[in-house]
Amino acid sequence: MKKVIGIDLGGTSIKGVVMGEDGAYGEALRIPTEAYKGGEHVLASIMSLIGELLGTVGDQPVAGVGIGTPGFVDGDGTILGGAENLPGWKGVQIYAPITERYGLPVAAANDVTAVALAELKFGAGRGVKNIVCFALGTGVGGGIVIDGKLYAGSHGMAGELGHIVVETGGLQCACGQNGCLERYSSATGIVRLAIDYASSADVDTPFARLVRKNPAEITAKIVYEYVAQADSLAMKVHHTACEMLGRAAGIMMNALSPDRIVLGGGVMMAGDIITNTVKTYAARSAWPAIFERCEVVPAQMGEDAGVMGAGALALERF
Amino acid sequence: MKKVIGIDLGGTSIKGVVMGEDGAYGEALRIPTEAYKGGEHVLASIMSLIGELLGTVGDQPVAGVGIGTPGFVDGDGTILGGAENLPGWKGVQIYAPITERYGLPVAAANDVTAVALAELKFGAGRGVKNIVCFALGTGVGGGIVIDGKLYAGSHGMAGELGHIVVETGGLQCACGQNGCLERYSSATGIVRLAIDYASSADVDTPFARLVRKNPAEITAKIVYEYVAQADSLAMKVHHTACEMLGRAAGIMMNALSPDRIVLGGGVMMAGDIITNTVKTYAARSAWPAIFERCEVVPAQMGEDAGVMGAGALALERF
Repeated sequence: MKKVIGIDLGGTSIKGVVMGEDGAYGEALRIPTEAYKGGEHVLASIMSLIGELLGTVGDQPVAGVGIGTPGFVDGDGTILGGAENLPGWKGVQIYAPITERYGLPVAAANDVTAVALAELKFGAGRGVKNIVCFALGTGVGGGIVIDGKLYAGSHGMAGELGHIVVETGGLQCACGQNGCLERYSSATGIVRLAIDYASSADVDTPFARLVRKNPAEITAKIVYEYVAQADSLAMKVHHTACEMLGRAAGIMMNALSPDRIVLGGGVMMAGDIITNTVKTYAARSAWPAIFERCEVVPAQMGEDAGVMGAGALALERF
Repeated sequence: MKKVIGIDLGGTSIKGVVMGEDGAYGEALRIPTEAYKGGEHVLASIMSLIGELLGTVGDQPVAGVGIGTPGFVDGDGTILGGAENLPGWKGVQIYAPITERYGLPVAAANDVTAVALAELKFGAGRGVKNIVCFALGTGVGGGIVIDGKLYAGSHGMAGELGHIVVETGGLQCACGQNGCLERYSSATGIVRLAIDYASSADVDTPFARLVRKNPAEITAKIVYEYVAQADSLAMKVHHTACEMLGRAAGIMMNALSPDRIVLGGGVMMAGDIITNTVKTYAARSAWPAIFERCEVVPAQMGEDAGVMGAGALALERF
């Protein structure tokens, strides 16, 4: 059976697996990223992890390496930017050194795009051809699969869905625009909404009092604990976050008429309440005939989605 | 050389050509649509036009038929709707009868999608792989080309770009939403903006006076005649139309990171002033690294873009 290596580069750790054609893999190996040491150090760590993984396969041939990385990757394997958590990663050429040392072809893609591919092959996108994934984490990432294949755009930059404007003249975003999706529906955005909404003293709910007392300790998880108790302030935050995501989902439905919109990332630990609410709002933002033919579903892959997507990328290419 | 038939179905007439692999074709044949006679009549007219075109090729084999139609076409050739100008067209199965009578395979797509393919193969999209076309006509249509191939979405409905919301709580659209692109940047939208902006009597420009005197006779062409004279009211309409289109272009850049955004349709007769102004506004709505790598260009194909795109669709499939 064909085997490939999948690498998931994160701000904290680098994970790697050896994966078979069926998506099966053994235990993931993990090393610290030590991002502060710079881009060349990160590349050296990836290379040594690949060496370690190759050591586990014995004589079995490996067809190639897939890598999921924050930011954008150009067609030749150069990091173009967009990876703010990895200083010095921009400009690094990642294909040539790996191919030179190990004689293996390499394919890299944005980490969320890789997750989208994992969902397509093994998770919430199985059996269909076109999906759009929103990853709700610290920011909002996007991954697009077209005709069963990862769509990276002309320069590896497609899927910048967190910066779709969903509220004209809305909240200021670090990117310079106002009203970006990320400002409302990421974990960070949800927490900021909570702090903002709770700032008025005449909002008096258990959640509002907690936020006013410990604003620095509020997380999206805590917001959804109060949503589960139907706290009216937490519900208001939830509805804003889901309405904005519903608008973006509606836009993507109108543009691409995909089979499924897949919602993933840490925020989705809150479960079906988000999927269902987003769906309600998306219905108002999409052409009805398109909406009727597009499901809104939660991601199915757990924390290994990144390495699985990277492996799937290598399986697809090599 | 491989030959195909390209058919462009419009609300007024049906055009057809026999096209070679190089995109060359003789004179287009044209018959009236007589849309009021219903969907089966339209199909019969298309069939007779195909017969007429086959009569012109003598013994040369024809590989297939491509059809561009308003609305959405499902994978099996059933019209799913979205063709308001063609009563009774929804639900008609167009592949089977043509294949049965002439023994030719048929591929149909939305008319604007077909135009996008024509631009890709023969016009403003040559030499690149990913383009997004906005067709500014009575409404705003969209066509998306991914990896050199027409992208129709899972049910032939992709590219409904006219109903992307670009202004939260904006002007009411017939689709039920507020602030749809089409409401501002179509020929109809531009005229309505002009009438709206001119309604205040303290706006006193030559264009404002004309609009107040003959609101029913204003067209997008007239608006742009006054834009050419730098009439301040006409310029205001122009800037609103282009800002809204720039926002939608920015959204599509963020989502798909295409090589080019192509602007076509009747409104684009006004020329470069629209392209340049849209570009300025799009820069504010797209991630800078993506915007820098995406051109905004006018469509190059003239009024035969529809039949050429339909022919190109057949060339691509058969």
